[in-house]
Amino acid sequence: MYNFNFYNPVKVLFGPGRLNDLHGEQLPGKKALIAIGGSSVKKYGYLARLEKELDKAGVEHVLFEGIRPNPTRQNVMDGARAVRDNGCDFVIALGGGSVMDCTKCIALMAANDGDIWDYSLSGTGGKKTPANPAIPIVCITTSAGTASEVDIASVISDDEADEKTGIFYHSMFPVLSVVDSDLMMSVPPKFTAYQGMDAFFHATETVVNTKVHPMAEMFALKTIELVAKYLPAAVKNGNDREARAYMALANTLAGYYMLCTSAHTIEHTMGSFHPKLVHGAGLIMIAHVYYDFFAEKKAAEEPMIKMAKAMGVENPTSGKDFIRALDKLIADVGCAGLKMSDEGITYEELDKYPAKLHEVLGGDTSADPLPLSDGDYLAIYRNAYK
Amino acid sequence: MYNFNFYNPVKVLFGPGRLNDLHGEQLPGKKALIAIGGSSVKKYGYLARLEKELDKAGVEHVLFEGIRPNPTRQNVMDGARAVRDNGCDFVIALGGGSVMDCTKCIALMAANDGDIWDYSLSGTGGKKTPANPAIPIVCITTSAGTASEVDIASVISDDEADEKTGIFYHSMFPVLSVVDSDLMMSVPPKFTAYQGMDAFFHATETVVNTKVHPMAEMFALKTIELVAKYLPAAVKNGNDREARAYMALANTLAGYYMLCTSAHTIEHTMGSFHPKLVHGAGLIMIAHVYYDFFAEKKAAEEPMIKMAKAMGVENPTSGKDFIRALDKLIADVGCAGLKMSDEGITYEELDKYPAKLHEVLGGDTSADPLPLSDGDYLAIYRNAYK
Repeated sequence: MYNFNFYNPVKVLFGPGRLNDLHGEQLPGKKALIAIGGSSVKKYGYLARLEKELDKAGVEHVLFEGIRPNPTRQNVMDGARAVRDNGCDFVIALGGGSVMDCTKCIALMAANDGDIWDYSLSGTGGKKTPANPAIPIVCITTSAGTASEVDIASVISDDEADEKTGIFYHSMFPVLSVVDSDLMMSVPPKFTAYQGMDAFFHATETVVNTKVHPMAEMFALKTIELVAKYLPAAVKNGNDREARAYMALANTLAGYYMLCTSAHTIEHTMGSFHPKLVHGAGLIMIAHVYYDFFAEKKAAEEPMIKMAKAMGVENPTSGKDFIRALDKLIADVGCAGLKMSDEGITYEELDKYPAKLHEVLGGDTSADPLPLSDGDYLAIYRNAYK
Repeated sequence: MYNFNFYNPVKVLFGPGRLNDLHGEQLPGKKALIAIGGSSVKKYGYLARLEKELDKAGVEHVLFEGIRPNPTRQNVMDGARAVRDNGCDFVIALGGGSVMDCTKCIALMAANDGDIWDYSLSGTGGKKTPANPAIPIVCITTSAGTASEVDIASVISDDEADEKTGIFYHSMFPVLSVVDSDLMMSVPPKFTAYQGMDAFFHATETVVNTKVHPMAEMFALKTIELVAKYLPAAVKNGNDREARAYMALANTLAGYYMLCTSAHTIEHTMGSFHPKLVHGAGLIMIAHVYYDFFAEKKAAEEPMIKMAKAMGVENPTSGKDFIRALDKLIADVGCAGLKMSDEGITYEELDKYPAKLHEVLGGDTSADPLPLSDGDYLAIYRNAYK
């Protein structure tokens, strides 16, 4: 058994309608900066509901708008200044992964000098240790995809340097997160599929990971079971409240351990050349070929049989049973036609991907069922190319 | 779906040998009170290992010995005084459930005035709110049974008043717990079985509980799977390191949610009249009859089929399949011969049990698959009597 730690101090309020319970919680301050992205949280009334909860709790609040998908260094620094200028003592993220990631960094920079890049541990990051912990963070997630509501990680972009970096400190755990699937009903089918499959792949990469342990596997297999059972329904009918609730649960559960493998790195490489490629879509494009690479070599038979079982396959006997279930799931969520070429990726450019892969953020490239060489990576890209 | 909260801020170091990692952790103070029960932690060298870790970490320590099984109010107050007299700023429990429960209360009373009973919420408890949080708690568990290392609860006895009470405050979450199954190798077979079955019943009561939710069910079914697979081996050969590790995991996992039903209350009633009855043994004595009550009425078919599957039964179709697997497990861990009469319980005294049942601590008596009347309780006691 692989030894492990479990540490997750986030209090999670889970379930449809739970935003309505926020006023009853002990909130970590007296004045909140509410951070949002675009206008949809206003349009669907989520912001008004949140403001009402804060008013009931006697907590003041100011709004910080305009966090971008793939949030930027500038978003972070603007938000941190807004915290200081308005005398806020905690932050609330209301949005999906981008908003939550950015807000966690805003909380860090509200309490520390310098630039967010100073505290990045990757690439051109300054690798400095923050002098102070982040101010308290509350996350209210409106998507089921990144699980940023239960982890310490953020991904931030620097447009000028054309670079993404990961920022993660223990003080960036939210103190409180609301996972209210009623706030996810408005996610369009395509993004429901991409986000749900991202959660699915967090789990599948965990199960095949050579460093998996029984507790991580428990969370991951439950995620796989729930995604296989409920994602097709949530994609088909966004108003299916039960399917949305179970997808929200699947995503959060996957967040407790994400033992990602090369698959995430393979996708991030694609994304580094094509910033508009949606992460979940990229993962779907390479999934069949990546997993089949190991199924062909019978390199992950036991984990794949477990995953096939979790997906409802009766009496699976080989990794190929998982591959068939995976293909069916991708088709059932309407993503069988996704093509790299539709995203502007050319077959020729794939040659430069393996070298880039060693530079980008991603999963643990030493934890695949078999070690992958640059030649293997190139073969995976080429075989997945459509 | 039943809405739920998840909140567990305990950092857990899990795995055989993990006590050796303690010195590398950020410990929550400079001088620890190490609380222990009897002499076995000395005899087997666990205390020496702990002291070595603290020395390596530069943390001073003093020893507090003699915590009883079913720890007393006096144990708690003596320990709290020892903390103050020695200027300790945190506590470390090294032992099983009794030692951990007592130490959590010592930490509370080290920071608060009055008597531990003032802060009890049950029976003759004073129901006062503590003015201060407990001082930081570290738990190092030497048994796989109560999961006290990941929860806020303690059970304390008052010998003079002949009463047990439950104490639970959020500040009584340990900040750090070590679940090192190598410290459990010396538990004798009989107690390995009792403790392991206690963990099993925490899980089975959760799965049949009418208030179960998918996250609790996930933890509980994994516990059931692991106990069914590894407890017989751990009982048979206490040196089976793998079986011990998986049993330690099963127990801790069950601790994340314990949605206990009447079964726990039924047993605590027996224990209230017969204080020497070991809790796990009492649960085993009534298990077949309690679960079969619902299986006969087909009142919990779906959860029982899930539990049977988790226990390795192929294609279970009814609650009776779970009952058969349960009977087999009890036999496999050498407990089929347990008898109430061997514990001094008489058939006649059972008449007074249902009334007492409404007074003792226990599970949620409103969450059984069917509501149980006093007549039902009496019938369960009588049918389980041997």
